[in-house]
Amino acid sequence: MGTCSDIFFGEVIGTAVLILLGGGVCAAVTFKKSKAFNAGWVAIAFGWGFAVLTAVYMVGGLSGAHLNPAVTTALALTGSMSLGEFLAFISGQMLGAFIGAVLVYVAYYGQFMSHLTTDREVLGGPGTKDGEAPASGPGPVLGVFSTAPEIRKPWQNLATEIIATAVLILAVLTQGLNADGDGLGILGGLITALVVVSIGFSLGGPTGYAVNPARDLGPRIAHAVLPMPNKGSSDWSYAWIPVVGPLLGALLASGIYELAFHP
Amino acid sequence: MGTCSDIFFGEVIGTAVLILLGGGVCAAVTFKKSKAFNAGWVAIAFGWGFAVLTAVYMVGGLSGAHLNPAVTTALALTGSMSLGEFLAFISGQMLGAFIGAVLVYVAYYGQFMSHLTTDREVLGGPGTKDGEAPASGPGPVLGVFSTAPEIRKPWQNLATEIIATAVLILAVLTQGLNADGDGLGILGGLITALVVVSIGFSLGGPTGYAVNPARDLGPRIAHAVLPMPNKGSSDWSYAWIPVVGPLLGALLASGIYELAFHP
Amino acid sequence: MGTCSDIFFGEVIGTAVLILLGGGVCAAVTFKKSKAFNAGWVAIAFGWGFAVLTAVYMVGGLSGAHLNPAVTTALALTGSMSLGEFLAFISGQMLGAFIGAVLVYVAYYGQFMSHLTTDREVLGGPGTKDGEAPASGPGPVLGVFSTAPEIRKPWQNLATEIIATAVLILAVLTQGLNADGDGLGILGGLITALVVVSIGFSLGGPTGYAVNPARDLGPRIAHAVLPMPNKGSSDWSYAWIPVVGPLLGALLASGIYELAFHP
Amino acid sequence: MGTCSDIFFGEVIGTAVLILLGGGVCAAVTFKKSKAFNAGWVAIAFGWGFAVLTAVYMVGGLSGAHLNPAVTTALALTGSMSLGEFLAFISGQMLGAFIGAVLVYVAYYGQFMSHLTTDREVLGGPGTKDGEAPASGPGPVLGVFSTAPEIRKPWQNLATEIIATAVLILAVLTQGLNADGDGLGILGGLITALVVVSIGFSLGGPTGYAVNPARDLGPRIAHAVLPMPNKGSSDWSYAWIPVVGPLLGALLASGIYELAFHP
Repeated sequence: MGTCSDIFFGEVIGTAVLILLGGGVCAAVTFKKSKAFNAGWVAIAFGWGFAVLTAVYMVGGLSGAHLNPAVTTALALTGSMSLGEFLAFISGQMLGAFIGAVLVYVAYYGQFMSHLTTDREVLGGPGTKDGEAPASGPGPVLGVFSTAPEIRKPWQNLATEIIATAVLILAVLTQGLNADGDGLGILGGLITALVVVSIGFSLGGPTGYAVNPARDLGPRIAHAVLPMPNKGSSDWSYAWIPVVGPLLGALLASGIYELAFHP
Repeated sequence: MGTCSDIFFGEVIGTAVLILLGGGVCAAVTFKKSKAFNAGWVAIAFGWGFAVLTAVYMVGGLSGAHLNPAVTTALALTGSMSLGEFLAFISGQMLGAFIGAVLVYVAYYGQFMSHLTTDREVLGGPGTKDGEAPASGPGPVLGVFSTAPEIRKPWQNLATEIIATAVLILAVLTQGLNADGDGLGILGGLITALVVVSIGFSLGGPTGYAVNPARDLGPRIAHAVLPMPNKGSSDWSYAWIPVVGPLLGALLASGIYELAFHP
Repeated sequence: MGTCSDIFFGEVIGTAVLILLGGGVCAAVTFKKSKAFNAGWVAIAFGWGFAVLTAVYMVGGLSGAHLNPAVTTALALTGSMSLGEFLAFISGQMLGAFIGAVLVYVAYYGQFMSHLTTDREVLGGPGTKDGEAPASGPGPVLGVFSTAPEIRKPWQNLATEIIATAVLILAVLTQGLNADGDGLGILGGLITALVVVSIGFSLGGPTGYAVNPARDLGPRIAHAVLPMPNKGSSDWSYAWIPVVGPLLGALLASGIYELAFHP
Repeated sequence: MGTCSDIFFGEVIGTAVLILLGGGVCAAVTFKKSKAFNAGWVAIAFGWGFAVLTAVYMVGGLSGAHLNPAVTTALALTGSMSLGEFLAFISGQMLGAFIGAVLVYVAYYGQFMSHLTTDREVLGGPGTKDGEAPASGPGPVLGVFSTAPEIRKPWQNLATEIIATAVLILAVLTQGLNADGDGLGILGGLITALVVVSIGFSLGGPTGYAVNPARDLGPRIAHAVLPMPNKGSSDWSYAWIPVVGPLLGALLASGIYELAFHP
């Protein structure tokens, strides 16, 4: 691991790339004037997984590529980390996630504007989904930034995020413990990325799998701040779940790791 | 390989994660109020394959990650394994599969309830498929837990499971025999996962490719035990096929391995 | 490389698994009573690619896993191979391909029968496609065994097969020449499999990418021999193209390899 | 790195294969008489990514497999490269891209002709999309060769190409800096390919992600030169964006690399 400065800038760049690519695939399948319009959940699951892959290999040598406060928390709990390092990780992740969301907005600016103006005139509601009646909840534009549940029940949604994040964190923690006696090495980033694809396919259905407080909160702040017409609510009432759920999932996974894997 | 305790807990955790992610993708594409609704067979095949990948790398260093009584049986037949180890593997796998199915139920509880209550009022049958007329056989809710054939003919279904499992087991057994003189090493989990993706795409059509007695029986018990309204039959008359078929496939593959690969 | 006996049995097993999985995915997406019905070209491209992956890692240590007379021809042209070895490879591949096609028939027997009897009564033609009017050419049942072009023009179809096979063979031949000075090692099978996925996505559109004489001819013989009602023609007039095209592609790739890559 | 001759021929072959496979998947999903018709964006993203994989492993040992003037520019800016080498790379890439586009035309000649003649008689416009009304802009035939934006706004399109290319180039530049102290080695080609899949899924929506001046300009020249009836405009007014954008993206990524990664 590098200095706190390397950690901070590595996490800023890595998390920005993660959210640029992850939010990007959400934009790509959401907006009508995108070539990937309606490409569906297969695109989402692979898109987010390979976003992780890209970011992990890019900044792995600089900061270790946590890119997720839940990962940092779990590694702090199960290993040794100074407070300065911890804060460098978390602050870098939050800033990077915000920057990444702004970059999605820049890359898809034409699509955002077309969706929020022309389509709205036709369809009538804030951030309405192309080709569908206006929804009452937060619309698809927020969905490019942050997660939202299909069925809104806080404790249910929290449970789903805890379970999904625990799988991710346990997969990350056990990477050093391989049957061959050494860790996964440079293969680790690829395996982690495919674990994220797996979580997307399997546990993303109910809540959209934040599994990362920075992934959800950073872009939500960007949604609140960016000057978009008719952008609708930033859905702050839900915002605590994709923060608390992943942190509890990290806690749960750390406990299982310490108990069962005697590292 | 670790102690019997490591084997047991490794297999419990690994098989639970396998079934959580594998059953999870079935839930994700089955339920209307899931973001992955109707994502189709591409999602299923990759979802199950990467479920294997996640579980194998997670517990590989603890138990060796068999996660499947057919794998354990084949390795016992072609190598050396004590009865205690064998029982630790099998019992861990069965318990893990049950736990994994319960975790799917927890993660998708809202979707299960919505499907079993609201949708049922509209559609009228036990576990009816969203948007379709009620089926007479076991409905989609059981399909989140266990496999069921498209055409119900026992000997035909058994043959398909034997063939599919034999491919899987032969791929696992031959991992140690590489052209370069050493085995696949840490790449082995990735290759096995992609073999499972392959079997899903190619041999999953007729029966839903259990290829693993624990994968089918554990969740079927969970379906029978969990308190769900209108859940329908657990289809016990079919339950022997995804148990016996994979075990016969393991036997067949072990024989081919011993005869042709002179290990 | 092993003895001629190892080569023969390795190629029989490997090519049988290749065709079982490759023909299997064609069956899986073709038949109405398959869970993967209509999963489309993404399933086909990944299904065939991971079929290669499964077979290559399974028998790589036994025979070297050519699995394709075009590969064997190119390696004979650019390296050294005895006539006995050459014949062991080719005969093993042809026998394996035939066995693989029979195994597809066994695994999907119920689907074949349902398609050829019930559906035919409804739709009226030999091997008609589910839900479509009967086609005049060879129907979808033959498509589970062998390739057929979308536009039937011999020289055009030959050109497509030559180009697609040349890409495959050049990718195989250059595996030993890596920038790091040594070959791809155990990663080679994965890379080859993804090259096959690539060829499927990119060059499979016009002719269905045989790129392998055994892959097409072995199953075509199986189609001619197997006792199926209403199975329709085995389309022998096209059969020379997926044999001659791949062999010419191998010749072309071998020439480019010798000229440009000075191995 | 080899001699200038190796560089030139390596880049010619590699870029030709890249464009043959990349343009091939565009043809495969565009033309009605292709087996992959309408396979959608999942096919496009994986098709282009695995096209990169195939080409990179094929010529990596010969030229280093830049295959992209933006990559060559970034490596020249951040490392050391003679003018002769630079010109060998760029000229090989441009020639290879042209040849690759011609090979797509040969492999899909029947599909091109069917689309441009029969379908046109039915639909009435230049290069009209199968099953849709004729578009006023450049049609789908040009789309098999070059990129075109969904919303035509030069500065917006330029920004998207800059951002997408910067991600690609930063991923390439950081490959030598891994947490384990050595680079990605032979895994690098696979990771780069999956980064390209990621960029396709996430940033391809607005402009079709040229991210490579040769990838767009070479095939556009081929479109202008090849004798096709009713082929429509080569859309030269847009041609500068997929050249200038990727080069600016390479410049941006090189700057970030030098500043933040202190290589």
